[in-house]
Amino acid sequence: MSDAHAARRERLSEYCSAGGADAALITKPANVRYLTGCAPCGATLLLTRERALLVLPAGLPPDDTGEHPYAVDLPHLTAEPEQDTAEVAAESAAGLRVSDLAVEEHDLTVSRLRAVAALAPAVRLTDLNRAVEHLRVVKDEQEIADLRIAAEIGDQALGELLESILVGRTERHLAMELERRMIDHGADRAGYPVSVGTGGHSGRSAHQPTDRRVEEGDFLTVSLGAQYRGYTVCSTRTFVIGAAPAAWQVELHRLVFEAQRAGREALLPGVPGSAPDRAAREVLRAAGHVEQWPQPFGHGVGLEVREAPQLGPDEMGKLDNRVPVTVGPGVHLPGRGGVRIEDTLVVRPSEAGGPELLTITTKELLAL
Amino acid sequence: MSDAHAARRERLSEYCSAGGADAALITKPANVRYLTGCAPCGATLLLTRERALLVLPAGLPPDDTGEHPYAVDLPHLTAEPEQDTAEVAAESAAGLRVSDLAVEEHDLTVSRLRAVAALAPAVRLTDLNRAVEHLRVVKDEQEIADLRIAAEIGDQALGELLESILVGRTERHLAMELERRMIDHGADRAGYPVSVGTGGHSGRSAHQPTDRRVEEGDFLTVSLGAQYRGYTVCSTRTFVIGAAPAAWQVELHRLVFEAQRAGREALLPGVPGSAPDRAAREVLRAAGHVEQWPQPFGHGVGLEVREAPQLGPDEMGKLDNRVPVTVGPGVHLPGRGGVRIEDTLVVRPSEAGGPELLTITTKELLAL
Repeated sequence: MSDAHAARRERLSEYCSAGGADAALITKPANVRYLTGCAPCGATLLLTRERALLVLPAGLPPDDTGEHPYAVDLPHLTAEPEQDTAEVAAESAAGLRVSDLAVEEHDLTVSRLRAVAALAPAVRLTDLNRAVEHLRVVKDEQEIADLRIAAEIGDQALGELLESILVGRTERHLAMELERRMIDHGADRAGYPVSVGTGGHSGRSAHQPTDRRVEEGDFLTVSLGAQYRGYTVCSTRTFVIGAAPAAWQVELHRLVFEAQRAGREALLPGVPGSAPDRAAREVLRAAGHVEQWPQPFGHGVGLEVREAPQLGPDEMGKLDNRVPVTVGPGVHLPGRGGVRIEDTLVVRPSEAGGPELLTITTKELLAL
Repeated sequence: MSDAHAARRERLSEYCSAGGADAALITKPANVRYLTGCAPCGATLLLTRERALLVLPAGLPPDDTGEHPYAVDLPHLTAEPEQDTAEVAAESAAGLRVSDLAVEEHDLTVSRLRAVAALAPAVRLTDLNRAVEHLRVVKDEQEIADLRIAAEIGDQALGELLESILVGRTERHLAMELERRMIDHGADRAGYPVSVGTGGHSGRSAHQPTDRRVEEGDFLTVSLGAQYRGYTVCSTRTFVIGAAPAAWQVELHRLVFEAQRAGREALLPGVPGSAPDRAAREVLRAAGHVEQWPQPFGHGVGLEVREAPQLGPDEMGKLDNRVPVTVGPGVHLPGRGGVRIEDTLVVRPSEAGGPELLTITTKELLAL
């Protein structure tokens, strides 16, 4: 992978040069990881036209061979204890006679920027904006392969849970069991806190699991995503507990299923990023469901669980080929619960079969 | 608790007034929680001399009664989707004709500060510095009671684990089981990722659990801390697996035990913050152990796992009564493993019996 990382750094250097900066200071962890393949918490990357220098925080333990496990193939320095890696990188930039240094103003705090400026007084600081996030939007096939494995892990964990007895268990226990199963199947970790909502909690987005126990007749909404080699997908499913779902449950599930399908079918290269959300929302609105706190039904995924593009109803940009996104509409009826169904898909052209579904667990209303 | 929160806001207002600011913009989550008792991710607090206004992010679900669960007894606004709560607060500050607004420059990114400045062009922005963190250092007895419960939860989880069979289980499984047990005993969550290190991984600080299995003859280092009502303590213990520890294991454990005791005994109101670290380090140095990547052996705990004061060897400040801190020296021998022992204690005067130990699980070398 280090060739891919070098190519990414090369693209970023070209972007900086075009903007008049001869170096960039990368502090946002997902961006450092994208450009180097390694991301100990708190590392900073200094990228000049000629070289890349990774600054590691103090206190990272050596591995069993005594080697630094994060060094990979990049030149690196280690900060002193209590010393900020961005400050060390700023000193290096000054020593290398950098004239224009682009920093990540959306990540760097005001205090850190001031410290960087003080240590590199002859260096002009500019804003890199979200250049690395922009590079990250379209994935290469290796990244998509990692996302595919992340999705498989989540599907396996969920499939196993569905075979067990659920009635009487708490949301918290189910969430912890899903997390454990994802790790057993090879996940780095859960990419975001597993959400399990039963009864009146079902259908909520990002519901924090409680001690409520699963009861006969409940809707059960599960949202989970494994992280694999840093990449996370999102998947949400809603089931019903017991052999005989109520008519309103069957109807609501059918509606959200239709809305989610409409959203998925709107995913094509070149269409506006708002199209999937609008298509899904239209189905729900036609049935009288207007959210009081409307949230976008989708977003990009990758090294962050939520990253560009945002796919809200007002998104202006167009979708590109090889962009993995979520489509996850839902309806929550206060006091009664609801349904949410969310997939992660990769945008692909119609010639290639259209969007590639990564999260393949069935979306039918299973009665468990 | 809302009286306590109002009193904290009052103290902060007085601090701001003394510094010439007539309002403060609090964005750091732990600080918002300290001043309001509630902390949905992304909330911002605007505090003027006359009033407190909490700005909540869009998309927080209402609770089952339809009420906003985070509103408590403070006036509040909700941001639009995709809108930054700090920007809404800045607009409110402008509307209230605030003249000098102190912001948390160590938390606010450069981009957010710029947006705040653009929305409140007539308002002069100054740095609040770490005023709220400073207020948070000395705890009240309610906060200490919460920390005490957090410590009890961790002790219970660890005690249960020690009664089970450990040989053959992986570090990851043991860590997940400890997390689950803490939640079972009433923790909000694990306050930091549970660390379990066996064999060559033992004795490391913040070791990330792997698939290595516990073997006969291993050292086993466990670090865990429950979060209870937002408050987290830290506890680390090292055990040996099997009935007959090797001589070097007994000797190394005795040494770290002595070092940790020396550190604990140095904890008194009025002594320099460096005293516990220096006392512990001196014992280790005398036995020839000098760390290649020296990290402070202690730090404050509270609403953050690591907060002021830092208790490194170069700490200049003095310890105060009612400050909860950790004392956690360790030795790691590459390839062989090591020992780390860490407690959380509250600084108390000698008349009151000296430091109050919160993490009471035995520190003896248990052979499991």
